[in-house]
Amino acid sequence: MSRSINLAVIPGDGIGQEVVAQGLKVLTAVLPQDVKLETKEYDLGARRWHRTGETLPDAELDSLKNHDAILLGAIGDPSVPSGVLERGLLLKLRFAFDHYVNLRPSKLFPNTATPLAGRPEIDFVVVREGTEGPYTGNGGSLRTGTPAEVATEVSLNTAYGVERVVRDAYERANARPRKKLTLVHKNNVLVHAGHMWKKIFDTVGQEYPEVTTDYLHVDAATIFFVTQPERFDVIVTDNLFGDILTDLAAAVTGGIGLAASANINPDRTFPSMFEPVHGSAPDIAGQGKADPTATILSVALLLRHLGFDAEAARIEDAVAADLAARDGSARTTDEIGDALAVRVAG
Amino acid sequence: MSRSINLAVIPGDGIGQEVVAQGLKVLTAVLPQDVKLETKEYDLGARRWHRTGETLPDAELDSLKNHDAILLGAIGDPSVPSGVLERGLLLKLRFAFDHYVNLRPSKLFPNTATPLAGRPEIDFVVVREGTEGPYTGNGGSLRTGTPAEVATEVSLNTAYGVERVVRDAYERANARPRKKLTLVHKNNVLVHAGHMWKKIFDTVGQEYPEVTTDYLHVDAATIFFVTQPERFDVIVTDNLFGDILTDLAAAVTGGIGLAASANINPDRTFPSMFEPVHGSAPDIAGQGKADPTATILSVALLLRHLGFDAEAARIEDAVAADLAARDGSARTTDEIGDALAVRVAG
Ligand SMILES: CC(C)[C@H](C(=O)O)[C@@H](O)C(=O)O
Ligand SMILES: CC(C)[C@H](C(=O)O)[C@@H](O)C(=O)O
Repeated sequence: MSRSINLAVIPGDGIGQEVVAQGLKVLTAVLPQDVKLETKEYDLGARRWHRTGETLPDAELDSLKNHDAILLGAIGDPSVPSGVLERGLLLKLRFAFDHYVNLRPSKLFPNTATPLAGRPEIDFVVVREGTEGPYTGNGGSLRTGTPAEVATEVSLNTAYGVERVVRDAYERANARPRKKLTLVHKNNVLVHAGHMWKKIFDTVGQEYPEVTTDYLHVDAATIFFVTQPERFDVIVTDNLFGDILTDLAAAVTGGIGLAASANINPDRTFPSMFEPVHGSAPDIAGQGKADPTATILSVALLLRHLGFDAEAARIEDAVAADLAARDGSARTTDEIGDALAVRVAG
Repeated sequence: MSRSINLAVIPGDGIGQEVVAQGLKVLTAVLPQDVKLETKEYDLGARRWHRTGETLPDAELDSLKNHDAILLGAIGDPSVPSGVLERGLLLKLRFAFDHYVNLRPSKLFPNTATPLAGRPEIDFVVVREGTEGPYTGNGGSLRTGTPAEVATEVSLNTAYGVERVVRDAYERANARPRKKLTLVHKNNVLVHAGHMWKKIFDTVGQEYPEVTTDYLHVDAATIFFVTQPERFDVIVTDNLFGDILTDLAAAVTGGIGLAASANINPDRTFPSMFEPVHGSAPDIAGQGKADPTATILSVALLLRHLGFDAEAARIEDAVAADLAARDGSARTTDEIGDALAVRVAG
């Protein structure tokens, strides 16, 4: 276990700044005294783009490689055309650093709001593929802007890419008490990609005889997310289906104010990146209204990735305790960060 | 208004047979005496495929063209490899008959179960594109079954195809009291198709100044489906996003036992097709357990398409009354059909 952390911080846009500050506060509070935390802030996002037209210059990308991990707040602003920052910065990082495991835990904590009647038990993890599928930017348009326009989006899937993320998901399922893994795809329509996913899922599964498996089409999966979320333990799925399912999962487990995510490179050839699932929420930015919990839970994922398991658990326990103690009165971003910093230190 | 209906019936697999029988029962009961109903049953689906290897022979496809409309139960069986019947029969019909408006109303009737706490008001319609996007079967795989396999799925989108479905959605929104239309896509990642959709959506919108519009990414839309479904009036979206969203919509409005759908060719160059959103449910087939309401509501959509507006409304009112009167005791498929047949006749 390394006794120093060299962390890249990309606060980004909107509430990104505010929530990242709380994430760092809690990180500092939870780390043992002998662990040296170094942080370097990267000015990337909408302001940078407006100033210089750059989304992620090569020099910055190179520099980011030298860190143990990246903490990211949120990227995006209505003043920037849709897709520019997403593809030029956020997805570029995921692809450049081969973050093929996009890990998104979903847990319904006690005393949190859920839109679901009856408060089902929800405690599952989505392993979303992060470097392939419809996210590769492969596609184009012909006769753009004319009545004869044709636009394509190509979903690229490789056995190489599917096998490694499926294996990671089996490992995670095997390490959990229920040992259950669900593949979500749409193999009755997307037959080429879908059949490849299913075949690899079945083949790799032979190495994990203790893991129970099942398969759901993505449309059916959304039904179970609201009618029987307790049936899920670990889910492995394609990049786009994972995007959709994890927002829905966040919604049923208390909202995206609580949903953490990790963009992991399990081979550790590049730094992994940790970020809340939520966006930059420009409508509430700068008002101290953002809930930093999702970022703080992302810091827990970061710590676990770097081998600080006990510290990660301390954060998760602190969040559970903080949520249990919430009485509905409004707290500022800062107050929630302070409360959690006190809990993890105590 | 035509005073005869020449209907093609494809009961299909599993519960398809049972629910279609009830749909026809209610159709017969609701039609004025002077309307001649002729039906012709087509034996298509899993049994046919097992017997002859055929999914939809040209002769059958040609014959189907001669009908005023098609009523379909459900297609699919676990004994048939995934994709064979879906692509060879169901999607083939949607594409061959240019069903570019896949219409799926979502309404939370009183006295029906919803997994959502607080029973929000839900009454919206999804206009799902039906002939393009990732459903075109465009894609393939290379080095299939080897560790070097590459599989692609191509989403094809044309201005021609997007414009006509977007226009249809504006017409529907304009005819509803709230006059609100939401475009759902993922234009921050699928930039080529997404930007074309958005541009056409904005351009056509200029012809409908009374319609309020907004745009949501598909992931965000799933959140609002469970946290604020009352915000939706009419939604227009891509084929795959529509598939996912309408199952979720069905789940929050009482389940797929109630969700109707219409595959419409608004130009009337080919017959339109009406089917419940649910599948063949082989686990409960033949037991009289299936709820035929979704099929019966699909018959209402069929009647409206053929100009029998009053009869369509009678069915919808009967369903609302039947649901309001349900006391939780189990009724068979047949009993529900009988009850609705009595109500529409009375
Ligand atoms: C902002 C967007 C590109 C991103 C995605 O689609 O992956 C976001 O929705 C997410 O889930 O992290
Ligand atoms: C069975 C399948 C091909 C179909 C679809 O994906 O369109 C179904 O899910 C639906 O929604 O009608």
